[in-house]
Amino acid sequence: MRKVEHIKVYPGMKVNDLIISMGKAGVMQAGKLALAVDILEEAIKDKECKLFFGLAGAMVPGGMKELILDLINNKWIDVMVTTGANLTHDLGESLGYNHYQGNENMDDAELKKEGYNRIYDSLMPNDIYVKLENFIKDNFDELSKTKNIREFLSKLGELAPENTIVNACYKNNIPLFCPALADSGIGLMMWGQIAQGKKTNVNAFDDLKEIIDLAWTSNKSAVFYLNGGVPKNYIQQAMQLSPKNAMYGVQITTDREESGGSSGAKLKEGISWNKMNEKAKFVDVSLDSTVALPLITSALKDRLK
Amino acid sequence: MRKVEHIKVYPGMKVNDLIISMGKAGVMQAGKLALAVDILEEAIKDKECKLFFGLAGAMVPGGMKELILDLINNKWIDVMVTTGANLTHDLGESLGYNHYQGNENMDDAELKKEGYNRIYDSLMPNDIYVKLENFIKDNFDELSKTKNIREFLSKLGELAPENTIVNACYKNNIPLFCPALADSGIGLMMWGQIAQGKKTNVNAFDDLKEIIDLAWTSNKSAVFYLNGGVPKNYIQQAMQLSPKNAMYGVQITTDREESGGSSGAKLKEGISWNKMNEKAKFVDVSLDSTVALPLITSALKDRLK
Amino acid sequence: MRKVEHIKVYPGMKVNDLIISMGKAGVMQAGKLALAVDILEEAIKDKECKLFFGLAGAMVPGGMKELILDLINNKWIDVMVTTGANLTHDLGESLGYNHYQGNENMDDAELKKEGYNRIYDSLMPNDIYVKLENFIKDNFDELSKTKNIREFLSKLGELAPENTIVNACYKNNIPLFCPALADSGIGLMMWGQIAQGKKTNVNAFDDLKEIIDLAWTSNKSAVFYLNGGVPKNYIQQAMQLSPKNAMYGVQITTDREESGGSSGAKLKEGISWNKMNEKAKFVDVSLDSTVALPLITSALKDRLK
Amino acid sequence: MRKVEHIKVYPGMKVNDLIISMGKAGVMQAGKLALAVDILEEAIKDKECKLFFGLAGAMVPGGMKELILDLINNKWIDVMVTTGANLTHDLGESLGYNHYQGNENMDDAELKKEGYNRIYDSLMPNDIYVKLENFIKDNFDELSKTKNIREFLSKLGELAPENTIVNACYKNNIPLFCPALADSGIGLMMWGQIAQGKKTNVNAFDDLKEIIDLAWTSNKSAVFYLNGGVPKNYIQQAMQLSPKNAMYGVQITTDREESGGSSGAKLKEGISWNKMNEKAKFVDVSLDSTVALPLITSALKDRLK
Repeated sequence: MRKVEHIKVYPGMKVNDLIISMGKAGVMQAGKLALAVDILEEAIKDKECKLFFGLAGAMVPGGMKELILDLINNKWIDVMVTTGANLTHDLGESLGYNHYQGNENMDDAELKKEGYNRIYDSLMPNDIYVKLENFIKDNFDELSKTKNIREFLSKLGELAPENTIVNACYKNNIPLFCPALADSGIGLMMWGQIAQGKKTNVNAFDDLKEIIDLAWTSNKSAVFYLNGGVPKNYIQQAMQLSPKNAMYGVQITTDREESGGSSGAKLKEGISWNKMNEKAKFVDVSLDSTVALPLITSALKDRLK
Repeated sequence: MRKVEHIKVYPGMKVNDLIISMGKAGVMQAGKLALAVDILEEAIKDKECKLFFGLAGAMVPGGMKELILDLINNKWIDVMVTTGANLTHDLGESLGYNHYQGNENMDDAELKKEGYNRIYDSLMPNDIYVKLENFIKDNFDELSKTKNIREFLSKLGELAPENTIVNACYKNNIPLFCPALADSGIGLMMWGQIAQGKKTNVNAFDDLKEIIDLAWTSNKSAVFYLNGGVPKNYIQQAMQLSPKNAMYGVQITTDREESGGSSGAKLKEGISWNKMNEKAKFVDVSLDSTVALPLITSALKDRLK
Repeated sequence: MRKVEHIKVYPGMKVNDLIISMGKAGVMQAGKLALAVDILEEAIKDKECKLFFGLAGAMVPGGMKELILDLINNKWIDVMVTTGANLTHDLGESLGYNHYQGNENMDDAELKKEGYNRIYDSLMPNDIYVKLENFIKDNFDELSKTKNIREFLSKLGELAPENTIVNACYKNNIPLFCPALADSGIGLMMWGQIAQGKKTNVNAFDDLKEIIDLAWTSNKSAVFYLNGGVPKNYIQQAMQLSPKNAMYGVQITTDREESGGSSGAKLKEGISWNKMNEKAKFVDVSLDSTVALPLITSALKDRLK
Repeated sequence: MRKVEHIKVYPGMKVNDLIISMGKAGVMQAGKLALAVDILEEAIKDKECKLFFGLAGAMVPGGMKELILDLINNKWIDVMVTTGANLTHDLGESLGYNHYQGNENMDDAELKKEGYNRIYDSLMPNDIYVKLENFIKDNFDELSKTKNIREFLSKLGELAPENTIVNACYKNNIPLFCPALADSGIGLMMWGQIAQGKKTNVNAFDDLKEIIDLAWTSNKSAVFYLNGGVPKNYIQQAMQLSPKNAMYGVQITTDREESGGSSGAKLKEGISWNKMNEKAKFVDVSLDSTVALPLITSALKDRLK
């Protein structure tokens, strides 16, 4: 057995050195966080391994956009599944808007009057929808021709400004999925056009084949989940159907196992489903994602440069 | 100000009387639960009001199926949005399978060998997929013709055995939505057919128009969310776009506000988005859904009989 | 393996019947709650067994006082450990004050002006301290002579009004412990007298011997923890030192295992410490205590009448 | 309003620079963590201000010992309140033992056989009690003469090995309190001596006067709480009685407000009690302490060197 070596810090300490020190302590959530970095490092370095990244939560309003772009532009991830909300907020910012620092105890009726939509303590200007609507309207013809959501997002990435998640995935050839895209601002903007009688060809089931093929053809798979949700589950079921289930796994969420829901379910549970290999290296970290992701990304940059 | 009257219990006490006593205490989660029942009672009795019910979490494996059917068959709800998992588990049971009582510390590798998939402490026999696959195969032609997910689920309800959620919604003319249906066992079974070269016509965006129309044409709306997720968010955005946002709201979840995600966001936040009316009656209950739902349904049966 | 039988409810359903139905479902927190009632029922009926009850959290401001008195007056519990806060709030109410129904979003500066101290959504009038101070002053001589906290609380119970927790424990010969009594309003009132130069004889360690003797001389022990804290840990360490560790265990808390703290630690962990017998019947229920305690007490009244 | 500036990381990034970047994002728990560092920095630099530090949770088994010593030895804190468990584990390590890296799914019956007590995923060798018992026995005469818990811990600090929390507090003249000291291994070792007929003079209420005097004579106070518990509440009530309540506040815990308990109560609530000044700078951070404390201490070392 390894001793718990107490974490030591010093002036000018680097993030990666702190993570290494947390790993030598090796217990509690600090130890699990350090293990998460080790597992991701190994998975990324493993040439045979495809990393499936599932991203939920309000990560763009939470200031995480550049870190997500780091994962994509460094090609640390091979497949991405996310929520429509993150794509909407990201596209909105690229069209000229920002999120603002508020707090969770603000007067919501007052915010409405002033034109801000609150996301916990982050504020989105409501007029973001104006430019989003125009963007979708201007590009509706091209978008509507795509035959499934993965293709839709690829086309959106081609059309979207630089430095967006969709564009970065497009440029890096990283397949991007979003099963519940209708459940987002982008979905609403599509509705706005459809409500005027326009048509789309985007099939709800069709890209399942693509993600399952990606899992199926993978020699080795890794899964990295931030905040559970549909992105996690969509990857989990691709793993389940694949002959080669996940050999590496990292989950970051403060959702609880006890509710029985998929978001908080421990990765271990996936072994019974054939989603996770019983010999896999995996860890569940119970930590806020807006703290975990910067730490992880910063440490990975040191290790993978 | 009203006093906190201490809760009193006695032999043979009825559930509804306990809820009333919790309401007289009026504080902590017991007080909030009692308020939730009052709000739902009022919303259901309000003839002008449409109740939108969002259901996530592993509710069928959690033993909640009959209670969900109560909500539907009593027509207490007018619109339902749920996850593919609940529909899959429900359909699976109707085809002859059961879930079994396990525990969260079981050996998952052992469970896999024995053919059980673990959902926290509930066990699903893995061969449920055999009959599911046959069912979808046999009905693929009819299902594949539907033009959006809402229609797909209506057709599925028509074809499914009695006493399923989909069938109950179908018979009671309750529109049922599931934006992330691809992210479920039903989705996987559809993939199985599509992988063999079959085609579907199910559009990913198309039923957005329907749920927004339902919200738009509602004189008064109520929202009832169990466990957040896509079902909550999909209803929330229908409220957001509607001129008449929600006047009643009940949310049951143990997810946390602090992660910034939609599932744990307090209903109050919706006021800034125009999802919740600032004069609405609403309450957030931080309680496990498998305990909350039986209590609520039982009390409502007394009050609405 | 036992099937998950779906919970069914009907008009006029009794609480105990609902708990029985939850037990037949047997999964998720509803199943755990039902198991908790079964275990407590068995422990109480077991003539050889001493039940140690640890109570933390704001249970008196939360409307739980009568239920705690039920546990005591029915002699379902044999030993009680609690926090000073619960005893302070209870004594305060017995001197003529009430708690009031507020909400967690009230303006705290405003409340201060109006003389209310907020406990989540329960409000305590600040002038409760006036009568508390007088009560402690009038009884200081008798209280100060007691030689440890257990004796102090026994004397306080003798002197306190009827229908208080301390008085009920006194009358029913149930030893009552409160290791951190100084950390409470009662402590502050004692300080008020000591600050004027008075002395007490109350020893900080002395009653440890008494609780360990109670555990040591018990043929069989049961533990029942609400909300963790010092009360749980104080009982746990009595179990640890006893040759006969706990054979029954019920824990109700929403605190998390992941922080590593004692409050959220699973009962299973106690096996490694010799606190819990490895053959014990025990269950951890992740549920709000203000909902769990009324349900449990109500069901027990039916079963133990 | 300030924009949410997305967090950026780079190879070799220092912890403090990451915290600064989190502060520029300024939202979610990352933003709150950065604010916590700013507030602590300001409180520590404020010459008039006394910082009261409340420490609960399994911080020594969690590898946090050196960081706690940093807070003490740099005199960043002026008063400390903690749990007996942390002092016990720390003293145990100083007598030659270590904690070991385990995991939360280990077989507890097996661990018992092998002589390890589990604390989530940290393992304490059970024979730690042997040397602890000897240490307390050898020093019982001196310890037993002290007249309250604060004095007891000061004497213990004088007698304890270098590099312990108690010794560091002693050498730095930082008053150390532990209201529930009986509820710990040190308490048990005292019981071991008392059970043999020895006596102590340690009063349960007596040091309340000392902490209240410390708060009363403080021109300005700051509070820093890790993991709630009795340490938080004991400081809170000293603030409540003081004419000058807290002007700075930082709380780190994953406990929830919704249970109504003191540990998870938001700092804002303290305004109604006169514990927190309504003009105070304060923040609640919902984050695991074993990750938060290293980050905070590391950043403070850069800022306060």
